[in-house]
Amino acid sequence: MKRLLVLGAGKSSPYLITYLLERAKEYDWFVTVADYDLELAKSRVGSHPRGEAIQFDVNNSDQRSAQIKKADVVLNILAPRFQHVVALSCVRFGRHMISVSYEDLRIRDIEEDANRKGVLILTEIGLDPGIDHMAAAELIERIKQKGGIIKSFESYGGGLPAPDSISNPFKYVISWNPRNVVMAGENGAQYLEKGQIKIIPWHNVFRRTWNLEIEGLGLMEAYPNRDSLNYRERYGFSEAETVVRGTIRYPGWSETWFHIMRLGWPNETLRIPDLENRTYAEVTEMFLPLNVSGNSLEKRVAGYLDISPTGSIMEKMRWLGLFSDEKTGKPLNTSAEVLTDLISEKLKLMPDMRDMVILLHRLLVRYPEENNREEEITSTMVNYGEKAGFSSMAKSVGLPAALVAKLLLTRNLPLTGCHIPTHPDIYKPVLKELAEAGIAFKEKVKTIKD
Amino acid sequence: MKRLLVLGAGKSSPYLITYLLERAKEYDWFVTVADYDLELAKSRVGSHPRGEAIQFDVNNSDQRSAQIKKADVVLNILAPRFQHVVALSCVRFGRHMISVSYEDLRIRDIEEDANRKGVLILTEIGLDPGIDHMAAAELIERIKQKGGIIKSFESYGGGLPAPDSISNPFKYVISWNPRNVVMAGENGAQYLEKGQIKIIPWHNVFRRTWNLEIEGLGLMEAYPNRDSLNYRERYGFSEAETVVRGTIRYPGWSETWFHIMRLGWPNETLRIPDLENRTYAEVTEMFLPLNVSGNSLEKRVAGYLDISPTGSIMEKMRWLGLFSDEKTGKPLNTSAEVLTDLISEKLKLMPDMRDMVILLHRLLVRYPEENNREEEITSTMVNYGEKAGFSSMAKSVGLPAALVAKLLLTRNLPLTGCHIPTHPDIYKPVLKELAEAGIAFKEKVKTIKD
Repeated sequence: MKRLLVLGAGKSSPYLITYLLERAKEYDWFVTVADYDLELAKSRVGSHPRGEAIQFDVNNSDQRSAQIKKADVVLNILAPRFQHVVALSCVRFGRHMISVSYEDLRIRDIEEDANRKGVLILTEIGLDPGIDHMAAAELIERIKQKGGIIKSFESYGGGLPAPDSISNPFKYVISWNPRNVVMAGENGAQYLEKGQIKIIPWHNVFRRTWNLEIEGLGLMEAYPNRDSLNYRERYGFSEAETVVRGTIRYPGWSETWFHIMRLGWPNETLRIPDLENRTYAEVTEMFLPLNVSGNSLEKRVAGYLDISPTGSIMEKMRWLGLFSDEKTGKPLNTSAEVLTDLISEKLKLMPDMRDMVILLHRLLVRYPEENNREEEITSTMVNYGEKAGFSSMAKSVGLPAALVAKLLLTRNLPLTGCHIPTHPDIYKPVLKELAEAGIAFKEKVKTIKD
Repeated sequence: MKRLLVLGAGKSSPYLITYLLERAKEYDWFVTVADYDLELAKSRVGSHPRGEAIQFDVNNSDQRSAQIKKADVVLNILAPRFQHVVALSCVRFGRHMISVSYEDLRIRDIEEDANRKGVLILTEIGLDPGIDHMAAAELIERIKQKGGIIKSFESYGGGLPAPDSISNPFKYVISWNPRNVVMAGENGAQYLEKGQIKIIPWHNVFRRTWNLEIEGLGLMEAYPNRDSLNYRERYGFSEAETVVRGTIRYPGWSETWFHIMRLGWPNETLRIPDLENRTYAEVTEMFLPLNVSGNSLEKRVAGYLDISPTGSIMEKMRWLGLFSDEKTGKPLNTSAEVLTDLISEKLKLMPDMRDMVILLHRLLVRYPEENNREEEITSTMVNYGEKAGFSSMAKSVGLPAALVAKLLLTRNLPLTGCHIPTHPDIYKPVLKELAEAGIAFKEKVKTIKD
């Protein structure tokens, strides 16, 4: 019997856990689901004879060691900040780790140890990052085989309410870790634009946006997503003049978020004492200097930010509750946690709604052997969740990781060290099974220059 | 024989290592100095019979484990980002760790493990944080014993060139880890002002400054330093209406740094490819949007930042080399590294210069039992380095850590768990020996209200 350890039972885990349990008998697996919240873990496992739920504290080194030692494969769905400590333990005990989060910068530090121990530390195997890597790698490989040279590469992703399920002024819904929504852009972003590297600090990420037309959805908005340049290195676009990754939102999200960020709300380091007994208005006031004039908080905020006191940005902030005289009433620590809690409540995915995930690649390709013909390739994946069932986000984040776990346990995968899923031994079988599960890309080719 | 392991042989280590080696025979110690750069470690140890220098990679878990296992006390002077991984290993093998850096947020995660193993994880035992904690704890204790109530608490620290050693337009000198200068303010700051909590995001830290008169030095400038509120919690100033920690600079530093930060230079996450072959001007250009007008880089920068193209901010940026057409010529990874390298070169402490460290506490105290008499207490420590000898920074950062190591090895210190040095068993003996070594505070008391 092979043992799988799933760390984390949050929003991204249910589909993955169900997938593994449904196949546990066939493949002779046993699945342990570990979460700080035992009840949550239990709710994911149910009474399945080949599953167990345990209370798990990743910071307890004895427990962490004991559980990882027992497992054949560790699926790490915990918050990104724990990726490093889990990876360290996995390397120590020679266990493979699969993570749906971005590769932590410190993961590079353990590359040598992982190779020495013959262990695979696979990160970025969710939706975005994850499916986007695999679909891009596959597409690029096909283009290269046809002799094409990539002049421009744009990659977009987003998780949003489906158009039939928009129910709030932000036109957003929390289908994944809300902390990541709050802290989005925290390390800034960089991309290649017309041959020039452009770097955007956090305080400008949400005002360096652009429009994006998506078939069937209309005009959307994109903001730059993290480091697009390492895509150029990873995929070897030596001739590309534009390499951009963007996050997709309904129009209007970014201009509001820009001002929430400008005030200083997304701060997860500074601990605000006694938050439980403070009102949202009191916290907002903390971000204003003492001497700002205006006889109401709203006037002071609008004046300080130099935005219309009666416009849509103020309206959305008001709707979210940032000026509310209610107390938070919860044992929160930081303004980022208050904001996370607010969006989790106000932008909740309700049973009568369904979410949607979008991935879009747009490439400009030149074919030197065909008289420099140029074409634009647009590859789009839109997947919808089920009302009151699995969200599209849970499915598209969890399934790739589950499929890799299956690969590791059923085939001989000769990869060790720290990787993201751009190796054909991973992306070929995984993309095939994703398509069978309804997560497939639709390609359009438009000739730009004959 | 007791074994001391010193991790890191950088700018903050030389005094500390010399102090330990000079006493190694008397106390029967052996001192291992470990650094990635073996030559640097060797230069600190020399040919001392009770010392050894080793090449050390903190990310190699086998080596990290082996060295920490052998030691009785670990003095961790490595960059802050390694505090957590070193602390994890120390707890695992039951070894005490002393660190001069701020307590990493993740250190709280290992509190229970440290207590279980009976290990002391002492952080913030350098200059600032370090001596400031100890001096404040001692002062506050005296005030409380006299029945005083603290109405206002301000704590300032800074490492600067001595007034006779100012040799550049920034009036600054690199006497400690230059990375920390570049990334200063990265988590924002918060303090209490007239009873109100004020939170300042990174992008505003360097324009929320104020003046500070220091005896013998004249008018200086201060910017808010990290989290002042956790001082209130730690010291229990329940009645204080103002609690502020500030970093001291010569006037003019902050307005320039504000704009360098606004451009986006201090980014240590985004890796810029091929930096070795890029010029400083090219990197600066990356921070400007494509469509900024102006027929020279300097005009584009001044226009984008909306500052005088001929003023002092532009002049300082130019002097630093941000518009230079020279190539960096070094295998650097990020813009933060380029900036770190630039300030290390341009703001170097030369043998004909001496540095200076300043700590200043300013308290407003009310004595209810003395008819509510109020007094202002100013406690100032200014210490100067020796030209071509130990810097004041190396002495004041390294000596407290060395003294605690001596305490741990020669007396019974019954502290376990994660601490900063506010316990009298630590600060009393350490402050006494610091004063003997010339690091002493001068107190002035001014009656405000009889």
